[in-house]
Amino acid sequence: MARKVNLAVIGTGRMGSVHMRNIVRQIPEANLVAACDIRLEVAQAVADECGIQRVVKDYHDLLSDKDIEAVLIATSTPTHAFIMKDVAKAGKHIFCEKPLALDLAEIDEALVEVQKAGVKLQVGFNRRFDKSFQKVHDIVASGEIGRPCILRITDRDPDFPAMEFMRASGGIFLDLAIHDFDMVRYQVGEVDEVYAIGSVLINPELNEFNDVDTDVVTLKFANGAVGAIDNSRKAVYGYDQRLEVFCSNGTAMAENETESTVVKGNTDGFLSAKPPYFFMQRYAPCYVEEVRQFIECVRDDKPTPTTGADGRAAVVLGYAAGKSLRENRPVKVSEMG
Amino acid sequence: MARKVNLAVIGTGRMGSVHMRNIVRQIPEANLVAACDIRLEVAQAVADECGIQRVVKDYHDLLSDKDIEAVLIATSTPTHAFIMKDVAKAGKHIFCEKPLALDLAEIDEALVEVQKAGVKLQVGFNRRFDKSFQKVHDIVASGEIGRPCILRITDRDPDFPAMEFMRASGGIFLDLAIHDFDMVRYQVGEVDEVYAIGSVLINPELNEFNDVDTDVVTLKFANGAVGAIDNSRKAVYGYDQRLEVFCSNGTAMAENETESTVVKGNTDGFLSAKPPYFFMQRYAPCYVEEVRQFIECVRDDKPTPTTGADGRAAVVLGYAAGKSLRENRPVKVSEMG
Amino acid sequence: MARKVNLAVIGTGRMGSVHMRNIVRQIPEANLVAACDIRLEVAQAVADECGIQRVVKDYHDLLSDKDIEAVLIATSTPTHAFIMKDVAKAGKHIFCEKPLALDLAEIDEALVEVQKAGVKLQVGFNRRFDKSFQKVHDIVASGEIGRPCILRITDRDPDFPAMEFMRASGGIFLDLAIHDFDMVRYQVGEVDEVYAIGSVLINPELNEFNDVDTDVVTLKFANGAVGAIDNSRKAVYGYDQRLEVFCSNGTAMAENETESTVVKGNTDGFLSAKPPYFFMQRYAPCYVEEVRQFIECVRDDKPTPTTGADGRAAVVLGYAAGKSLRENRPVKVSEMG
Amino acid sequence: MARKVNLAVIGTGRMGSVHMRNIVRQIPEANLVAACDIRLEVAQAVADECGIQRVVKDYHDLLSDKDIEAVLIATSTPTHAFIMKDVAKAGKHIFCEKPLALDLAEIDEALVEVQKAGVKLQVGFNRRFDKSFQKVHDIVASGEIGRPCILRITDRDPDFPAMEFMRASGGIFLDLAIHDFDMVRYQVGEVDEVYAIGSVLINPELNEFNDVDTDVVTLKFANGAVGAIDNSRKAVYGYDQRLEVFCSNGTAMAENETESTVVKGNTDGFLSAKPPYFFMQRYAPCYVEEVRQFIECVRDDKPTPTTGADGRAAVVLGYAAGKSLRENRPVKVSEMG
Repeated sequence: MARKVNLAVIGTGRMGSVHMRNIVRQIPEANLVAACDIRLEVAQAVADECGIQRVVKDYHDLLSDKDIEAVLIATSTPTHAFIMKDVAKAGKHIFCEKPLALDLAEIDEALVEVQKAGVKLQVGFNRRFDKSFQKVHDIVASGEIGRPCILRITDRDPDFPAMEFMRASGGIFLDLAIHDFDMVRYQVGEVDEVYAIGSVLINPELNEFNDVDTDVVTLKFANGAVGAIDNSRKAVYGYDQRLEVFCSNGTAMAENETESTVVKGNTDGFLSAKPPYFFMQRYAPCYVEEVRQFIECVRDDKPTPTTGADGRAAVVLGYAAGKSLRENRPVKVSEMG
Repeated sequence: MARKVNLAVIGTGRMGSVHMRNIVRQIPEANLVAACDIRLEVAQAVADECGIQRVVKDYHDLLSDKDIEAVLIATSTPTHAFIMKDVAKAGKHIFCEKPLALDLAEIDEALVEVQKAGVKLQVGFNRRFDKSFQKVHDIVASGEIGRPCILRITDRDPDFPAMEFMRASGGIFLDLAIHDFDMVRYQVGEVDEVYAIGSVLINPELNEFNDVDTDVVTLKFANGAVGAIDNSRKAVYGYDQRLEVFCSNGTAMAENETESTVVKGNTDGFLSAKPPYFFMQRYAPCYVEEVRQFIECVRDDKPTPTTGADGRAAVVLGYAAGKSLRENRPVKVSEMG
Repeated sequence: MARKVNLAVIGTGRMGSVHMRNIVRQIPEANLVAACDIRLEVAQAVADECGIQRVVKDYHDLLSDKDIEAVLIATSTPTHAFIMKDVAKAGKHIFCEKPLALDLAEIDEALVEVQKAGVKLQVGFNRRFDKSFQKVHDIVASGEIGRPCILRITDRDPDFPAMEFMRASGGIFLDLAIHDFDMVRYQVGEVDEVYAIGSVLINPELNEFNDVDTDVVTLKFANGAVGAIDNSRKAVYGYDQRLEVFCSNGTAMAENETESTVVKGNTDGFLSAKPPYFFMQRYAPCYVEEVRQFIECVRDDKPTPTTGADGRAAVVLGYAAGKSLRENRPVKVSEMG
Repeated sequence: MARKVNLAVIGTGRMGSVHMRNIVRQIPEANLVAACDIRLEVAQAVADECGIQRVVKDYHDLLSDKDIEAVLIATSTPTHAFIMKDVAKAGKHIFCEKPLALDLAEIDEALVEVQKAGVKLQVGFNRRFDKSFQKVHDIVASGEIGRPCILRITDRDPDFPAMEFMRASGGIFLDLAIHDFDMVRYQVGEVDEVYAIGSVLINPELNEFNDVDTDVVTLKFANGAVGAIDNSRKAVYGYDQRLEVFCSNGTAMAENETESTVVKGNTDGFLSAKPPYFFMQRYAPCYVEEVRQFIECVRDDKPTPTTGADGRAAVVLGYAAGKSLRENRPVKVSEMG
């Protein structure tokens, strides 16, 4: 049997605790050796549940531990960049949640350290690990349906996050649509120009911090293909996750998953089930698979499937979309530096 | 039994002959009394098939006939406006195929005559008579799923028309997407601004006359809703006609119809049928219903369901999209005059 | 252009009037010359609507007319057999509604006369002309998915017919399931043995005349395949018409058609449309196509697609199912004589 | 936190090892303390993987261990009954894989011991724990769509098991359809009479031991409802698991799950994915949930969701179906003793 990779998790909140449970239960290739959170009691509780002995408050305590090969960073977004730098300097491989940071300069500094240290970096774009999106990608990449012409993504949340979270989230393009900005690159390639429109149609509180709850982003790809993403913060029927890559010789679509396959017929018609509630349900297997692949890359010294460059590119697109919305004009990605 | 409306058809080519057959076979409220085409033999053949006695080459011959109450114009687009003017002056009600004209000034002149003459005018936006699009409209208009937030239309042809036709068609926005520009107004309301992107991805011949075969148009509606239309001249799997109006309390979608309901399962998976081949098949019942309603409006003196203003507005949106594409910037509808 | 076939309709009630309208409007290959009904005013009304001059009360008046080549019989079931005999003796081709008769001896006598006279006979098994059922048949018959193993039919009406009609209908197997007994032969071949179970679960009035409102019939085919039909007199969600032929290398299924393609999503889930209301809506194109093909067979002297033998075989299966239900045992088709 | 239940697994082959992994990874309520298999090396390998210390060859070694409260039996079917008896006598609760046994007398003896000992018994009818089948059950049981009228189950395997396994399996009714015989009771209630037909259509080797590879079983329920199950040993398109309960005021259907939600459109039509390959994939979450609920029942002293009586009843129906097939007549369940 192959050796296990010793791993520590920094940030044991919502996503961090999910990763910890996944690692302990479903990723035998990893050996979870420590958990860290500035809220020590939070880390302790999850560690207890997962049978992890070592719990620390300050992540620096882990950096000098030679037995730790890799670190999973799931802290709040503003801390990603400086933790990444420290971890890279300590020579440990990094799995970092998305977005890498809200500030491009911070991202670039961190990526330089990662580069210098020669450690691996994987960004948590969980949707790339979804079997349906992967199948669309594989069909398109195989060339069997010709060249990509139109990409369409519908990405709508079932409900608003806490208002406090939204204020600090960087807005709909950097928080919600960031996944789509990565997905479009995964499916069709580099984006040349974006144009974004948006409105506050559901929750007027968003006007206070110049965010929108509804948007459409159009994309010109470097290969000539065109695309449109639409987003909403609140689809009352559930988490709407659809994608189509229309090509010159066919089309490939990923439809929504459903909570069950039951159809009820009565005098109203035929009622079928809603999608799984939200990302935790819909993408549960992806959260396992992305970390499993990261561990494998560390163990077998392979390149990671989602790189620091991918993490940066999605943030760049998010900024370009925001600029486009504010200035009501198409924005070249190259404008963003 | 209510009286029958005496009707003549001018232009007996592809659409005109379809209308003639529909009127004779399926619209007992109408009495088709004459057919006119500058290609007399074309008119004669269809008239024979339909059992119509009177066939003329010059439409002026029909204008003095007091027994003719209404005229259906299905000639080539460049002739619509002047025929409309003459027919209006003759005091006859008008059903005119879309687009009203390719030139806004010509449209305006014709509409002035229609107004002066006090005759009814209906424009052949057949898709407004589709039961599925109507049902989406009714659900949205009822308010039961809240206010419109995002409109999405996928409108893709199964194949290119003849190159000769395309050169004179006014381009993808005035030929293909004109239906979508009417549909968006029907479903969500007036459009404030459009932005269009497009590419030649399938047939490089289009570059010769500055047309595109693939496009995405984003829309800002006056009510704050946003939208995206995507078009292609060639969907190899068939005529793709989908629409969604996503609202604050739900969504309403019209999916594609299919040629049959057969599903074949084998080791490849489950194969289901393509959509009906093209507009003649897909919208066959709409071509009957639109004329039936027109006849009813004439007979019972009611306003027509699609007006001259509707016909003009769709052309305006088509021009705005074209301008947006050429200038690569969002274009206010009000810019178009 | 090919010559037109002169046709008369006997019986101008529900189905007869549908056929008349179809012939006049959609079957240019036929020339409808006369209508007959013992309720003369009923015949007159439809004839007026269709522009038919000749209306008679007694069908014998038509038999001596040498110009009439073919007769469509749509009278009440008990009169089918003797009218068929008379029409056959008069040397005219026959299209007869299903079932041929409720009495096998009567059917056999009529078929003898048809045989003697050498006229064509087509039975109104409209479902054989449905594009989806035909496609299933074609897939199976082509051999591309191997040999038939399991046939499944779901055939459920949206509501009970009038109680008076039901009493005289011959029961659920000869009235409702008769279509299925023809369909199973069309799809898979001859049936060797049937077993039927049934219950009165919805309308207790049926107990008065020993009928059931719900049944399941299992079938052993001569080629070794097995099958199950299920029927209900009342599916509140609409006319349920599904079929599957499961084969050794795949399966072919015909799903329900729907009234529209609209899907509405809200907090309850996704609601899609019911099937077309009943047979008149669901099988409308089949009623045209079956008569069109009959006319073609007469005109071009070709064998009819549904023969007298088919008409008889379905009735035999209906009787076998009834006997099986009464005696609670499997019944060989050969037992029925 | 509630106490953990100490559990041992007897039989660590295909199903036993799945249960062990599930317990260790996904059922924190249980404490897996020992594994047993007469093939000691098989047990040792899974135990090592799961971090279980205690591994024994002879299950009697576990019976005297007072710390073990419950035992999961996943040995080969012929050994179920005597192991159950021994485990019951030792006062331990039992989860036993289906079928309880192939011999009714053995089942009855085992159930007597379970009864005497007052221990809990749950039978591994995994499909009762499927969210879709549960939802159908809940809809029907709620009464919202009226009384059950017709039950339809399609249960087809993707391929034959090993011929050696089939010979000892008790035949299609006791091996494959046993799940359906439990499901029909879960959905609609007790069965009064069955009638079975079947054929060897795919693999002629089955003739050697009088088994069939294709069957249809019709059911009369005590409440008057009727039903039909169809089975095949080989559906080339995958594991086909569909169910419908048609009721007097509506219907509830569970459709197949699919490996992905991807639809590929090209000139052939639209291709969608096959179902998950086989029971291990399709019912993976059920295998976790059934054991989790068993553990909960033991811990909280609640009745098990699938009882010994359920286990017996399904075997009785399997025998009745076999008898019906051999004697070609409907068989009352009461005939089986």
